[in-house]
Amino acid sequence: MKFLIIGGDAAGMSAASRAKRSMPEMAVTVLEMTHDVSYSACGMPYNIAVPGKAIEDLVVRQADVFRQKQGIDLLTGHRVDAIYPREKKVSGTTHEGEKFEFSYDKLLIATGGSPIVPDLPGFDLPGVLGLKSLDHGRKIKAYIDSYNVKKAVIIGMGYIGLEMCEALRSRSIEVAMVKPNPNFIPWMADELSDEVQKEVESKGVNLYMGHSVQRIESANNGLSVVCDDLTLDADMVIVAIGITPNSECAVVAGLETGIKKSISVDRGLKTSDENIYAAGDCADAYHVVTGEKTWIPLALRANRAGWAVADNICEKPVALDGVAGTSVFKVFDFQIARTGLTSKEAVTYGFDPAEVVIKTRSRAHAHPGSTPIQVHLIGDRKSGRLLGAQMVGKEGVAHRINAVAVALHAQMTVEQFAQTDLAYAPPFSPVWDPLLTAANQLLKRM
Amino acid sequence: MKFLIIGGDAAGMSAASRAKRSMPEMAVTVLEMTHDVSYSACGMPYNIAVPGKAIEDLVVRQADVFRQKQGIDLLTGHRVDAIYPREKKVSGTTHEGEKFEFSYDKLLIATGGSPIVPDLPGFDLPGVLGLKSLDHGRKIKAYIDSYNVKKAVIIGMGYIGLEMCEALRSRSIEVAMVKPNPNFIPWMADELSDEVQKEVESKGVNLYMGHSVQRIESANNGLSVVCDDLTLDADMVIVAIGITPNSECAVVAGLETGIKKSISVDRGLKTSDENIYAAGDCADAYHVVTGEKTWIPLALRANRAGWAVADNICEKPVALDGVAGTSVFKVFDFQIARTGLTSKEAVTYGFDPAEVVIKTRSRAHAHPGSTPIQVHLIGDRKSGRLLGAQMVGKEGVAHRINAVAVALHAQMTVEQFAQTDLAYAPPFSPVWDPLLTAANQLLKRM
Repeated sequence: MKFLIIGGDAAGMSAASRAKRSMPEMAVTVLEMTHDVSYSACGMPYNIAVPGKAIEDLVVRQADVFRQKQGIDLLTGHRVDAIYPREKKVSGTTHEGEKFEFSYDKLLIATGGSPIVPDLPGFDLPGVLGLKSLDHGRKIKAYIDSYNVKKAVIIGMGYIGLEMCEALRSRSIEVAMVKPNPNFIPWMADELSDEVQKEVESKGVNLYMGHSVQRIESANNGLSVVCDDLTLDADMVIVAIGITPNSECAVVAGLETGIKKSISVDRGLKTSDENIYAAGDCADAYHVVTGEKTWIPLALRANRAGWAVADNICEKPVALDGVAGTSVFKVFDFQIARTGLTSKEAVTYGFDPAEVVIKTRSRAHAHPGSTPIQVHLIGDRKSGRLLGAQMVGKEGVAHRINAVAVALHAQMTVEQFAQTDLAYAPPFSPVWDPLLTAANQLLKRM
Repeated sequence: MKFLIIGGDAAGMSAASRAKRSMPEMAVTVLEMTHDVSYSACGMPYNIAVPGKAIEDLVVRQADVFRQKQGIDLLTGHRVDAIYPREKKVSGTTHEGEKFEFSYDKLLIATGGSPIVPDLPGFDLPGVLGLKSLDHGRKIKAYIDSYNVKKAVIIGMGYIGLEMCEALRSRSIEVAMVKPNPNFIPWMADELSDEVQKEVESKGVNLYMGHSVQRIESANNGLSVVCDDLTLDADMVIVAIGITPNSECAVVAGLETGIKKSISVDRGLKTSDENIYAAGDCADAYHVVTGEKTWIPLALRANRAGWAVADNICEKPVALDGVAGTSVFKVFDFQIARTGLTSKEAVTYGFDPAEVVIKTRSRAHAHPGSTPIQVHLIGDRKSGRLLGAQMVGKEGVAHRINAVAVALHAQMTVEQFAQTDLAYAPPFSPVWDPLLTAANQLLKRM
């Protein structure tokens, strides 16, 4: 059995390792376009924050460990250009320009995603940088050092933009952020978004919502980000307006794709071709709340899907439930978390959402050190089901959201969730956990 | 309708307030033995830790607010001595020694619990103190100040004992702890218990496991705690060997009781008498994992049960699922949490437990500030169900346990839990949350 994998990060290397562990006799080959494999991409902003720290610290397992200890045929600098499903082979070009071909019995496409670069003038100028691969992180660090960056503009205010904002501020770099949407975190209720916005502004970040970038220009020893009614000067520009799945080869090969051209897979991670799987940021998933397809590129799913592909190939059939869209990020002293649907998404998927926003405290009455915590909870009036939650606070947000995520997997009603026995001790929570207070309030509106 | 409530803390005042809010015309009377109502009992160790801080800071709502703003007939200093279910009345004695009688249509017994005092010589000496009511806290604070306590012995190593240990150490009081059980936290796996033990000892606390206390003696200006093979001197002794439900009146009145003489209630909190409810630390509950009765006196259940009694009396019928036994406490820099069954309990209840203990990190690979986190996860081989979890660590334990608690309410299998989409970001978790790593490992043993 020849198991060929395109892409050597989370999904690809998880699949390779697990397949080799299950069936040591299997020939497992990984073709990775770059020279970096198995690294913590999500850790990049925190690494960039520390001058002099090697970006290679983020590598979880060295390529040679995969090769020598695990017996995986790991080839870096191998870019796949085409997949031929009928012939069960792929072709490509090495970093040195040599052509190659590999045949397979089973193929995994784990090509990840790439930062979206708008088709506007100046986005190819030196110093205009995206962040997704380790090499992106390497380039940003090198650029900051080489050009002694004092001033940066970040285009986009998603979680990568905000994490980068914190990273650059911690290096005393002036930061301005700009985007066309007039709302700071548009998927959040205003009360929650406003609190994060105040926090970010209090750290000296200039936020420009509602400004469409027209172009980037070279300007006296730096760059100018030009909007219709605003021009922002910078030594460096970070483009963080989202990522797009790397699915070109899959599209050309005739595989089915879905939302934003992510590769369509079933619960066993199989594509529309019997012998081809896809996993990680290039592939879609089922949403546990809607039961419909979604595309939410996140690390846990990539790792889990990689494992599931290996299990399915190794004749240990597994079907994944899907994702709840659980995510968390930190920006300065705030934790921001979500899971499930926003009320807007709930309407889109045919639910009749009731919602509540509550503000309570992170610790018990009279306990010192308590900070505000806000919860936005959403339920469905028709079925009574819990649909989603969003939270903001300085402590107790990151892990608390998991209780809701589990409830979404279990398809709990708001009433059932309101009855759950959550932990209480004065340093960690009010007697009624913020999630329970929200659930109790939401019940009145259902 | 006359609604009479015995006991004015969590369960009693929750029921009183909610009944009055639902049915303002209802006559709601609360008879409270002490002069304190509605306070955060769990906050006492943290209050005792701070010299000069009034214990009354823990009062959540003043008695006069209940009386004047909410129209509740709240009578403090009223001790109920007897309940007459057939006559639907109670009798008692006021703090001033006057006899009283009250009749009711519906009665709630919310008498809470009391610290267990062993029947041994010297436990009635001045300076030998328990901790449950606000007055206990008041007495401990006063004793520390009046007698300039420099040295304390705590009998018992449960969560109250450990919280008090931290409180006293923060006031630079020398602390020794003693108990007969040879294991530090006997309901925990050794690996977890050992880590907490090291932490406590590193803070200068002397732990004496495996020593039975024989008596307490007065000794040169202080106290001596005498064990068979050990004598510990102290200025003050805290007795923290557990609490017992205050159910004497209920027993005498012929109401059914269960585990440790807690008052038996159904899912609607009704006792064996049609017109009498019980809630809070004096009453039992159903366990969501076993479906059997249990007695786990904790604050959230008391508040929730109080509300449920009010709803049932106000003709909004509600049945409570029960408790998962979720709890958390802090001792020095450690968070200790549990939910559901231990493996020993699992055997008792007829399960065939598989279990795993894992040690991982609180943050992502290469993220600074990471600390060890240990998870003990238990599942049932027969049904595949998740049965319980215990966790220890310096961060990310207190709220993380809630994900398991919700899974227990939903009767999830380990396999289903292992598929849940939990939050990940480098400052808060490895990609695979510690709970998921534990679940993945546990699956191999099921």
